[in-house]
Amino acid sequence: MRSVSIIGIGQSPVGELWDQSARQIAYTAVSAAMADAGIAHADALFVGNMLSGSLLDQEHLATLVADYCGLHGIEAAKVEAACASGGAALRVGAMAVASGFHDVVIVAGLEKMTDTVGKDTTAGLATAADAEYEALHGVSFVGLNALIMQRYMHEFDVPLDAFAGFSINAHRNGANNPNAMFQDPIDLKTYLRAPVIATPINMMDSSPVCDGAAAVVLVPTERVRAFTTGHHWGSVEIIAGSSANDTLAVHDRRDPLFLEAAAIGSQKALRQAGLRPQDLDLFELHDAFTIMAALSLEAAGFAERGQGWRLAYEGAIGIDGDIPISTMGGLKSRGHPVGATGIYQVIEVVQQLTGRAGANQVKGARLGMAQNIGGSGATIVTHLLGV
Amino acid sequence: MRSVSIIGIGQSPVGELWDQSARQIAYTAVSAAMADAGIAHADALFVGNMLSGSLLDQEHLATLVADYCGLHGIEAAKVEAACASGGAALRVGAMAVASGFHDVVIVAGLEKMTDTVGKDTTAGLATAADAEYEALHGVSFVGLNALIMQRYMHEFDVPLDAFAGFSINAHRNGANNPNAMFQDPIDLKTYLRAPVIATPINMMDSSPVCDGAAAVVLVPTERVRAFTTGHHWGSVEIIAGSSANDTLAVHDRRDPLFLEAAAIGSQKALRQAGLRPQDLDLFELHDAFTIMAALSLEAAGFAERGQGWRLAYEGAIGIDGDIPISTMGGLKSRGHPVGATGIYQVIEVVQQLTGRAGANQVKGARLGMAQNIGGSGATIVTHLLGV
Repeated sequence: MRSVSIIGIGQSPVGELWDQSARQIAYTAVSAAMADAGIAHADALFVGNMLSGSLLDQEHLATLVADYCGLHGIEAAKVEAACASGGAALRVGAMAVASGFHDVVIVAGLEKMTDTVGKDTTAGLATAADAEYEALHGVSFVGLNALIMQRYMHEFDVPLDAFAGFSINAHRNGANNPNAMFQDPIDLKTYLRAPVIATPINMMDSSPVCDGAAAVVLVPTERVRAFTTGHHWGSVEIIAGSSANDTLAVHDRRDPLFLEAAAIGSQKALRQAGLRPQDLDLFELHDAFTIMAALSLEAAGFAERGQGWRLAYEGAIGIDGDIPISTMGGLKSRGHPVGATGIYQVIEVVQQLTGRAGANQVKGARLGMAQNIGGSGATIVTHLLGV
Repeated sequence: MRSVSIIGIGQSPVGELWDQSARQIAYTAVSAAMADAGIAHADALFVGNMLSGSLLDQEHLATLVADYCGLHGIEAAKVEAACASGGAALRVGAMAVASGFHDVVIVAGLEKMTDTVGKDTTAGLATAADAEYEALHGVSFVGLNALIMQRYMHEFDVPLDAFAGFSINAHRNGANNPNAMFQDPIDLKTYLRAPVIATPINMMDSSPVCDGAAAVVLVPTERVRAFTTGHHWGSVEIIAGSSANDTLAVHDRRDPLFLEAAAIGSQKALRQAGLRPQDLDLFELHDAFTIMAALSLEAAGFAERGQGWRLAYEGAIGIDGDIPISTMGGLKSRGHPVGATGIYQVIEVVQQLTGRAGANQVKGARLGMAQNIGGSGATIVTHLLGV
């Protein structure tokens, strides 16, 4: 198996990009990644996207993006795994290079969720859940996460403000990310006064609906030097990766308060690399809701069950903490254009590992983990990146 | 790169399966393929599907299918490339095995297009075209193909009944396929009297809207023996594969009457295998419309431009002809559950290459090509299979 490295990254700003269609947003990211890698063509383009069929009446999305980016005669396919679509697409791109099927592969994540005429974004997001056994009953995606959070607070006797630290940390870091949707820090008062969306989830527990695209360029590690000459920043290796699933419906889980697929996936990826959780310099986790940040830290082995929130409460997740998370704002502050998020996470790890994270730089970072969650923990994609 | 072989196949009947939901149809195919391969688990499941978001309000489809099939803790992702989703998913499955990421991979194709409450299937199919530059103007997917067919008849001075042979051949072969949607032969009179859908495309030129699922099990060729002991039928190797794209919109093509991506893809796959078109024993092409069958034969090198229809007219496409196509009924008679079609095609080639095609057996078949088209030729996936 050939080792795979990232030699180019590109992203659009995240936000309500009302003046741009999906293809234009994708072009911003793909062309930036290609310029960053110094390539004029590629062998394949895989696009992580969840909602183009539901919200844009547009399938065949990867070929659309390839066409608009001037990439003809190449392989193109969309990869979908709900909010883990970006991570799932990166898996496929890595397989394409590792197998020798292709040498230069672009993996993009793309989502256009705002300004979708006549469509219901909340209903679209609910397609990540079980249409016949969850969504049919009217529970929204926020609603499912609210049920999990409520149960967590009850089971583990967790106070109401326990999750504030995740949101405050994300906004503090997002303030230094020029591509973040929200660039204003918040404090505990802002968190406590935030309007409730679905009890107990409030506006500051929840990531926003938004648009964005991000892209990376992959090549075999053995060929990295051919692309990274001159003033190029170098490359980051995909050291290990995994994808694991769980039951789609939350009510089918043995324990809805434990992300089993995240535990399986993290352990698998770390085992592949011969590493332990404490070897990580940062962890870009999937904080679509603050409860998911807590559960992710627990599943990856950074906290006991029911104790993940303490890492935020006690400051361990900050840039200088034991396990920095959401270092460029996370899903909460950078934003969560769902199918694109997995690629944004990977790009942010790349920035950290190559010393280009600016004011948010984790000192001496050499090993990072990115974890992308689909649904309420039903698909979890984990990548370990290193320099 | 590890060679990849197919050791299990399974399919649901194709039709209007009103008494079954998507997950049930998928289970029929996946469980049959697993039983055929003699496996109780797999490392990954990739699902080719186009319309679950638009028509079923269900994304996260691969994890849903995995869950319903009892496959937990594994990698699962949906792969979408319009009507070439099945072929595109097989590409990903092959990459997963060839790379060494996984050893036992299931690739399923799944589509549920009928009995979708409150949804417009024609609008869903139009999401294969460019939403902003084609579908917006009201042209349906059949309409786009009708424009191509009309132009073809004009440019090459082709008579009205020129395409009948494709439909008659497909129905003749489908009559012997117990899983085909239409199992009645038709004659020229039926073709000529068929009601017009979009001039000049009539009911007998067009594949039907239907439901179905098909699945294959992939393993590394070097490990085939471990799975095919006893009374097992053996295995079929994926000798070569390719995927190529063209402009999404038909009006952007240099020549809308030539499937450039099919030509690039066929040549690439044949070159990989060191073979020529005339070495093929059969060609499961993508006869969603009779015009696509003609264009596919031309692009693959079996006829000059504008002459593909003559192969049907003169009988060369029959089971005993020079280049048998649609040997189990093709998209026209077996049916075209869009995201599943690419896997049905591959399964039918496997049946032919292992002498299990019954009354439709192509004698001594050892090499077959399956070609799956997304949109009006914008994504074309080609696989060469051999024993």
